This record gives sequence, structure tokens and C-alpha cells, in this order.
Amino acid sequence: MTTAFFDHNSTTALKPQVLDAMLPWLGQACGNPTSRHVFGRNARDAMELARAQIAECVGVQPSQVVFTSGGTEANNFAIKGMAANLSASQLLISAIEHPCVTKPAQSLAWHDWKVATLPVTAEGTLDLQQAEQALNTSTGLVSCMLANNETGALQPVAELATLAKARGALIHTDAVQAFGKVPVDFTSLGVHAMTISSHKIGGPVGVGALILDKRVDIAPLLHGGGQEKGLRSGTENVAGIVGFAHACQLAMQTLQSRSQATQALRSQLEAGLQRLGAVIFAANATRLPNTSFFAIPNIEGETLVTALDKAGFAVASGSACSSDSTEPSHVLLAMEIEPDLARGAVRVSVSDSNTAEEISEFLAALQKEVQRLKGLSAIAA
Amino acid sequence: MTTAFFDHNSTTALKPQVLDAMLPWLGQACGNPTSRHVFGRNARDAMELARAQIAECVGVQPSQVVFTSGGTEANNFAIKGMAANLSASQLLISAIEHPCVTKPAQSLAWHDWKVATLPVTAEGTLDLQQAEQALNTSTGLVSCMLANNETGALQPVAELATLAKARGALIHTDAVQAFGKVPVDFTSLGVHAMTISSHKIGGPVGVGALILDKRVDIAPLLHGGGQEKGLRSGTENVAGIVGFAHACQLAMQTLQSRSQATQALRSQLEAGLQRLGAVIFAANATRLPNTSFFAIPNIEGETLVTALDKAGFAVASGSACSSDSTEPSHVLLAMEIEPDLARGAVRVSVSDSNTAEEISEFLAALQKEVQRLKGLSAIAA
Ligand SMILES: Cc1ncc(COP(=O)(O)O)c(C=O)c1O
Ligand SMILES: Cc1ncc(COP(=O)(O)O)c(C=O)c1O
Repeated sequence: MTTAFFDHNSTTALKPQVLDAMLPWLGQACGNPTSRHVFGRNARDAMELARAQIAECVGVQPSQVVFTSGGTEANNFAIKGMAANLSASQLLISAIEHPCVTKPAQSLAWHDWKVATLPVTAEGTLDLQQAEQALNTSTGLVSCMLANNETGALQPVAELATLAKARGALIHTDAVQAFGKVPVDFTSLGVHAMTISSHKIGGPVGVGALILDKRVDIAPLLHGGGQEKGLRSGTENVAGIVGFAHACQLAMQTLQSRSQATQALRSQLEAGLQRLGAVIFAANATRLPNTSFFAIPNIEGETLVTALDKAGFAVASGSACSSDSTEPSHVLLAMEIEPDLARGAVRVSVSDSNTAEEISEFLAALQKEVQRLKGLSAIAA
Repeated sequence: MTTAFFDHNSTTALKPQVLDAMLPWLGQACGNPTSRHVFGRNARDAMELARAQIAECVGVQPSQVVFTSGGTEANNFAIKGMAANLSASQLLISAIEHPCVTKPAQSLAWHDWKVATLPVTAEGTLDLQQAEQALNTSTGLVSCMLANNETGALQPVAELATLAKARGALIHTDAVQAFGKVPVDFTSLGVHAMTISSHKIGGPVGVGALILDKRVDIAPLLHGGGQEKGLRSGTENVAGIVGFAHACQLAMQTLQSRSQATQALRSQLEAGLQRLGAVIFAANATRLPNTSFFAIPNIEGETLVTALDKAGFAVASGSACSSDSTEPSHVLLAMEIEPDLARGAVRVSVSDSNTAEEISEFLAALQKEVQRLKGLSAIAA
């Protein structure tokens, strides 16, 4: 049995062309970019070319790109590194951040920062009015993601950046889910720092970047040999970085066609879901084209995910990037969805490698499982 | 022209067998290990097998292995993470640590830790008597590498661990250079934490591990989704981890033969170096079998490295893992080598892929360059 992969917000398969671009650096030729000999220089040249390619994809200068081991490290670096060079003040984060923003933020509470949460609307988008009220002159740092990983809802980051900067605060955005799915331009967002990650866009796992406004004073998280101009020490993952750049370029080239293709699949999916009585979360928000987050009332998301996996469909319950937990999604709770309904949440995130046929088969399988599970709960009741 | 690679302490080429082991995870099959569907479970199973394999190579339980993005992250994690759960006290590190231990240690000075340095002998090995004197009941944490990356000198870590534990201190060792070149057994070292890195042993760059005594209370450096039992968040680099494990296993299988082969090459090299009037650093220390660190009086190391690179030999001056700097090596200064001689330092680090012929050719090229450079300096005088 082949399984249809509907979990692209969790991770994406490394694209064969990306692997091809990496292979020369996965062997004899790859030196340590710090080394002065020919192997080192070649590795450094490849890395700097990759840096320039990625910079172009997000509209910045190459010197604004700091490579990290992934989105999680870049978010930790952004939050802790910017806070380290400010005096302890207020840190505002949206209520729907990924744990790799929320937890670094909470860790600052130990260092006398006051961490407060910005609420979202029932459609899962940041409430700008409430954000404006929360922002004050003691706000040092703000972080709000560009697209939510669960609902796909796009956030008004540019507007928030304007408000934050008017109060003299620094602003970071986690663009891990948005980048490669919708156009992302650092300059028009107007933020000071932005996180991107390679494995969400067909690149290798274990590479990411923090894009920085040149004026930002940020402390390193990893100290050592002084790589990345002292901002991120550690031998650079040249093959990974080259792959990341290649994946970025491919993503840019196909952005529009993928957007159309995935949106068509999602419309087909959501029409079917509605027929099955599903509630679609953030349905009226502007969302990533590939993401659908829904629940069938009275059916546990976990149970459905397991049943669908057996039936040949790989989907996620709550956030697939966090560890095992049966708590309802914090994103849905922030949207004031009833906990019981939230526990039913299932996420389908497609790519243009998925097909309309897979969606039809999925809907048929889902219907079958729903009937079976409703039958079971009827018996239990 | 082909260039002989004599810089294996800086990085090693990914072994073809290791790449083969990684390839299944560099494509469609690899899910996010946190996901509950079949792609996720398969990825998790591969990662847990790799963890068990690595654990076996260092003589621990799989649950003692925490994967990181490399040696630098593991050292930062060890130093900052163990210190975070102790009250600020004294931190002792050897004078010859890699910057990715020294700089995290220095960063703790901001948090009221007192950082002191343990001296080494003229042969570049930790002075145990002085270490014993420096250790006292206010010592919270000690870190000493197992083998130095520049001289290759092995350090008396097990003895230091006994002393440290008698004072109630925690002890960490950076085994990045030792692991894979000499036998490394966590339990007989008696340390609380030990760092290893994949790309130094024929595995991919961007993967490493911190091996932990189960009783150690350590705070995470990367907060987020809670991977690695909450100790290291971030989507796990499954292909990298699988490659790391494969490289570890290969390194264990060939440990003895490689040790003999590299030691023979080094003896040949050092006999020739002596004929050229070179000073060999830490010559009388017990060293890694593959490492030779030397200087030709009155010839700059930098100049020699550049000339040798042109002649087809990739060697390093001071430490190749740190950023550009023309300061003499801190390791040689700690050994009380004259700064002028230290500025001449060149490191040759071989592997069993190098040949006796390469060494002969290298010695001939070196002689030629030395004569040329001596001629130049005679003219300049
Ligand atoms: C919104 C968001 N931010 C950050 C991350 C973490 O990125 P990485 O997996 O590269 O650590 C993820 C997913 O893992 C994510 O969905
Ligand atoms: C002794 C030592 N420790 C740590 C490191 C850093 O490891 P990594 O390159 O995996 O970050 C190196 C070399 O880079 C090293 O030689």
C-alpha cells in the first residue's frame, strides 16, 4: 500500500534536484569553509553563492543572512539574542506562535522580562487593535509569525511592524510556514528579523536562517569559532546550505503554479469536508493555499489520524512539530474554539505533488472512518 | 593538479558508504519523527536505531545520547546548560580548549560565574597538580577536552574527573577530536557530559551529540517542540543522524588499522620534518595518531600554508575551526612556546586515505618552499 502524504507543513521530501545540487558537497571535495586551502575556499565559495541566492529570494543583501541549524535555532537566536542586548522590558508574542518562539520567550521571564500574549480573532488572525493597546514604550521586542502552521492563517505582520516600530520596539517574524508558499519580502514586512527553514520547502532538514536588519544588535546563541561573522559559530553545513538555496530558488520559480495547484486541491477537499459536517478552522481568514485544519464534531483528532494512517493517508492532528501531547491545540484555544471540538482537529497540508484523485480517495476513506467511529460511539453511548 | 588532503582534524570527507546509508532518508520516505503516521514512525525508528548504534560506540545507553547540530552546539549546550541549573560558582576550563568551550564559558561570566583556566605543561597536557590546587568546593563545573585539535595531545580527563567529582563538581569533556581516532568510553572517563561530532569521523557536517550521565540536570539551549525529551528542540535531522551512526560504526571497525596506518605516516612525516629543522609541538605527549603540529623557525605558518596549497597540499595553520586571525595559537602560548615560533605553526592531520607517497611528496615540496622562503628572507635582511 502506498500512503498519500498530506503533511507538508510538518516536513517535505527533499527534492531530487536539490539532492543533486548537494551531492558534490557530500563527498571528497568539501572542506571546512574556514580553511584557507583550496578545499576550504571552494566550500566557502559555494556557501557564499548559496547565501546570495537565498538573500535574493527574500529581498535582502547576502550579509543579512545568518545560517542556523533550522527554524527552531533561528527562532531561539532571534528571541534570546535580541533580548540579550536590550534591557529587560516587555516582550509581546502572539497567542498562536510555534513553541520554538513561545518557549524561548518564556525562558526570558527568568531574566526579568515580562512576557505578554497578543490575542487572535475567532478566525485565527492577530487582533491588531488589541496589539496596539498592548504595545507601549516599555515594549522591547515583539514576535508574530507570518503564517500559522496549524490553520495556515496569514498574520498582519507588516501592520504590526509599523505599530511596534512607532513604539521603538524590535520585531521578529517566524516565516517558516509562509516562506515558499506565499511571497515573502523582508523589506516590505518591515521587521528586524525573520526566520526561515529549509525542510519546509523541499530542502534538507537541519538548515535554516535568520534574516536580519543590519542595524540590529543581536547576541549569538552558539559561541565558538566565530563563523557567520561571529553570530553563529560551528562548522558550516555546506551541503545543507547549498541544498537550502537550491530549494529556495525552485520554490520561487514555482510559487504561483504551486499556489494554484494546492488551492484547487484544498477547495476540492473542503467542499467534501463540508458535506461530511466538518468545521473548518480559520475558513474565512486569508490562509496558506495548501493548508486545511478541521474537525468532525464528536470524533477525536488522534483517533482519526491513526485510522487514516492505516487507510493510507498521512495527516496530522494539532501541530506536528511539537512533541506528543493530548492537550487541545493552543492555536484553537486562542481562537476560542470549544476544547471538545478542538480535540477533533486534523490538519491536511498538501503540495503540488498531491493529486485530485488522492483527495477524492481521502474523502471516501474519511467518510468511511467517520461512519465507523460514529457507529462505535453510538454503541458506547 | 590534485591536492593531497592533510587537514582531517578540520573536517573529513563524507564516506561513500555513509552517504549510501543516508540516501534513503534524503527523499520521499523521510517524515518528521514527531509525526504519528507511517512516514514519521519510520523516521523515528531510523533515528532510534542510530541512537542505539552511537550509544554502543561510546559505551552508554541510548537514552544518554542527545543529538545536536554539531560539536559547537553540544559544547555550548553542555557548558551553558549545566551551569544554568547550578548556582553561580567557579567554572574551570583547560587553557587549550576549543573556542566553542572557551567562549560559552566566558559568556557565563555575565551570569556571575568565575571562570578560571587550568594550565598545561610544555608538552601541552593538562597539569593535574595545578588542576588539583585550583579545584575547590566552590567549583561547580569543569571542562577539559579529551584530545587537543591542534597538537593532538591526549588529556588526563579520567584523572581530572576523579578530582572534580571528589569536590562535588560536574565535569564535561569535548571528545570531538578523540572520538573515532582513539578508543573513547564514556563510563571509564567518568565524566558527566561528553561532546562528539559527526563530520570529524567521516559523517555529515551539522550533526553531533552530547552524551549525558543520566543523573545530570541540564537546561536546554534550544527551546521549542520538545524533541530529544525536551533537551533539544528542532526537527531532527534524520538523514544526518543515520549518517553519523554509520560513520561511528565504521570508525569503530577500523580504529586499530587506521591508528597504525596514520601513525606510520606521521612517523615518516616527522622524521622528514626533523631533517628540515622543524620543531614538533607536544612531540613527547601521548597524541592522536594522525596529528603533527610543527614550525620551521623564522617561517610564518600562514605563508607556508598558502605556498603548500599552491603546491598541492592542504594543511592548516593554527586551529582550522576558528575564524581568521593572525594571533599565535592560544594552545602554543599556553605551552609557553615563544610567540615568534608559534606564528610558524603548521598542522598536518592525516587519515588512512593518505599514502606514504603523498608524505614524501609533501616533504619534498616543503623543503623547496622552505629554501625559497629562507632565500626571500635572506634578501629582505
Ligand atoms: C511555524 C514554525 N516555526 C518553526 C518551526 C521549526 O522549524 P525547524 O523544524 O526547522 O526547527 C516549525 C516547524 O517545525 C514551524 O511550523
Ligand atoms: C576540539 C573541537 N571541539 C569542537 C569542535 C566543533 O565541532 P563542530 O565543527 O561540529 O561544530 C571542533 C572543530 O570544529 C574541535 O576541533
